[in-house]
Amino acid sequence: MQGYIEQTRAAKPHIHCITNAVTINDCANILLACGGSPIMANAKEEVQEITALCDGLSLNLGMPSGEGVEAMLLAGQRANALGHPVVLDPVGVGASRFRTGCARRLLEMLRFTVIRGNLSEIKALAGSGAETHGVDAHAADAVTEDTLDSAAAFARTCAKETGAVIVITGAMDIVSDGGKTYVIQNGHPMMSSVTGTGCMLSTVIAAFVTANPEKVLEATAAAVCAMGLAGEIAHTRLGPMDGNATYRNYIIDAMYNMTSAQLQNGAKYELRYE
Amino acid sequence: MQGYIEQTRAAKPHIHCITNAVTINDCANILLACGGSPIMANAKEEVQEITALCDGLSLNLGMPSGEGVEAMLLAGQRANALGHPVVLDPVGVGASRFRTGCARRLLEMLRFTVIRGNLSEIKALAGSGAETHGVDAHAADAVTEDTLDSAAAFARTCAKETGAVIVITGAMDIVSDGGKTYVIQNGHPMMSSVTGTGCMLSTVIAAFVTANPEKVLEATAAAVCAMGLAGEIAHTRLGPMDGNATYRNYIIDAMYNMTSAQLQNGAKYELRYE
Amino acid sequence: MQGYIEQTRAAKPHIHCITNAVTINDCANILLACGGSPIMANAKEEVQEITALCDGLSLNLGMPSGEGVEAMLLAGQRANALGHPVVLDPVGVGASRFRTGCARRLLEMLRFTVIRGNLSEIKALAGSGAETHGVDAHAADAVTEDTLDSAAAFARTCAKETGAVIVITGAMDIVSDGGKTYVIQNGHPMMSSVTGTGCMLSTVIAAFVTANPEKVLEATAAAVCAMGLAGEIAHTRLGPMDGNATYRNYIIDAMYNMTSAQLQNGAKYELRYE
Repeated sequence: MQGYIEQTRAAKPHIHCITNAVTINDCANILLACGGSPIMANAKEEVQEITALCDGLSLNLGMPSGEGVEAMLLAGQRANALGHPVVLDPVGVGASRFRTGCARRLLEMLRFTVIRGNLSEIKALAGSGAETHGVDAHAADAVTEDTLDSAAAFARTCAKETGAVIVITGAMDIVSDGGKTYVIQNGHPMMSSVTGTGCMLSTVIAAFVTANPEKVLEATAAAVCAMGLAGEIAHTRLGPMDGNATYRNYIIDAMYNMTSAQLQNGAKYELRYE
Repeated sequence: MQGYIEQTRAAKPHIHCITNAVTINDCANILLACGGSPIMANAKEEVQEITALCDGLSLNLGMPSGEGVEAMLLAGQRANALGHPVVLDPVGVGASRFRTGCARRLLEMLRFTVIRGNLSEIKALAGSGAETHGVDAHAADAVTEDTLDSAAAFARTCAKETGAVIVITGAMDIVSDGGKTYVIQNGHPMMSSVTGTGCMLSTVIAAFVTANPEKVLEATAAAVCAMGLAGEIAHTRLGPMDGNATYRNYIIDAMYNMTSAQLQNGAKYELRYE
Repeated sequence: MQGYIEQTRAAKPHIHCITNAVTINDCANILLACGGSPIMANAKEEVQEITALCDGLSLNLGMPSGEGVEAMLLAGQRANALGHPVVLDPVGVGASRFRTGCARRLLEMLRFTVIRGNLSEIKALAGSGAETHGVDAHAADAVTEDTLDSAAAFARTCAKETGAVIVITGAMDIVSDGGKTYVIQNGHPMMSSVTGTGCMLSTVIAAFVTANPEKVLEATAAAVCAMGLAGEIAHTRLGPMDGNATYRNYIIDAMYNMTSAQLQNGAKYELRYE
């Protein structure tokens, strides 16, 4: 995991985000924290130009709208044409036919560099009939030691089919490009008490892969480790009266202060080959 | 006030929120803090399905739009049909004819379980010609010892007319179902320096009543006590350099850490019968 | 810089904000922190009435949309007719033709009391062909000792042409009404790691000038000093594990606690006459 966060800070990639109102501020601040420079823009009149000014694109399906998806398609096609990395976060896909339809349409029309979701979301995206209950993974879709092998196999298959690096996040995280697969064990259960840790991770991934375009799989794994490690570091700071609001701030703070040595020493991952 | 917060944490109710961009992140985080699970969705194409997946619905009129109100109607009708609790926060009603019209239309078309606002907002909603000055209660509408009896009588009348539990918040809070009325004295004046404490309370009410459907009045009163108590606890933590931003975080933190015993001991309420 | 913050707290001006989703919550909280009362409303059906209820108007072009700009025009024309101060923050102008077109249209149709941006944004607004790279000033547009004189001359010219007080923020800040020009050196470089410090400043300016309508230039300069000083004070509080999220909160906290004496003693400004 050496070199990826430094390179992100050195490159200071401009990331165009089309994202949801719930977590947009946190996504902007964690992008700044990891070394990126965020630009939020979602009007179809300008997204192509904004994307062209930027270095990478992050699309997030939380709170989707018809117009928002049109803007995502316009921006995504331009980003694809320019060879910019494009990251998709299919938030809550499976929770409504509209949302699933939006995600499928994006998947048909665009090439993604990385797709990140929980197991329910990635299953719904792949059309494998997952039951989604809102924005959290269905209980049956928790990734544990027992289900790790099948989840990793599923991630590999999805990666081959989509051509994207697939990230499935949960208690254990899986990052696969169809050939190599990382299993990552950073993070803290309390992160699920903070809204938007998934959205934040997706924008951090966008910054890391944009700054490290020759090493997409490894940069994605490094971003997943960095986010989980930020959750661990932040948790050590919590006092008895601190709760999820302070925790949110400390997670972003930990990303802001994360050194290469911290990430190198704190990353808990295992690499598997098919 | 015993049992309501535990039951909310045990039930982990999924709450569909259609709300404003100003406070949407805080509403999501305080819902998580009190034990609920938030899902924000406002596209008319999906709100019916999203509501059907959830257990309760929270509608907030801050920053209203024509499309947003259509989505509220669609979601509200589905929630009514499914018997899900529906909470209305008529933010700033009275400040424009459009906003008042939106609120009246919602009130005509939907059955609400709870309606929460300041006295100016509830008066405007009831058509009693309140003067509203933006999103704060008009000075003449402060609920004090002097005006408590008339405000409580007004809440009772509104509750009977709407069939909803009416919550009027201010220096003193009133919660009435038309028969029984709680007068609650938790909270801290500095809460009015934090944007969205009212919005946050409304979503906490949605979680509490969804998890305690047999005891809507009591669960609402418990939520009002819990929010005020969170404001009190948070205030004790403030150092001399802390201001409204840290206070916001500490309020959410206090909700996250609130125990049943804390709520039981800290709730300051009085029950009046008609 | 004496008197302006006290007067803002005494007048408690209601500020109507039409702004972007990224920083809307921070803008509301810092408005409360400096003594203003925020009202966010952007539906064209209500913005005229909302503005009429308020004392000042703050327009922010971050994440512009066609409908949003229509609402800004409606609100701005009403505010102009009523003699309310109107502040423009042309976020990212120059980054797309659409955004530049929106800003030019606002500039043609409305009279602004204050316009605040970085040098790239103000150049793009003035049509002087600046290269903008997203929402940050282009590197060539940093205001330093070397470029200060030319930047100040440019601000003076813009102020004369637009009739607005022009604020150019950067490492050094310039505030000019075309006759007198303040050069302000408050602030901390880490403020650029927090999303929305520019947006927040613009809303604070709106509060200060609305509360001090006879002294627009001085009130604007006082607001710029206050925001920079809040950044300095907040920075002194940071511990080794704190990052940009905690810093954001501490900046708002510092504004909340800022006394007249602090501002008087901490303001670092120089007044130049043409």
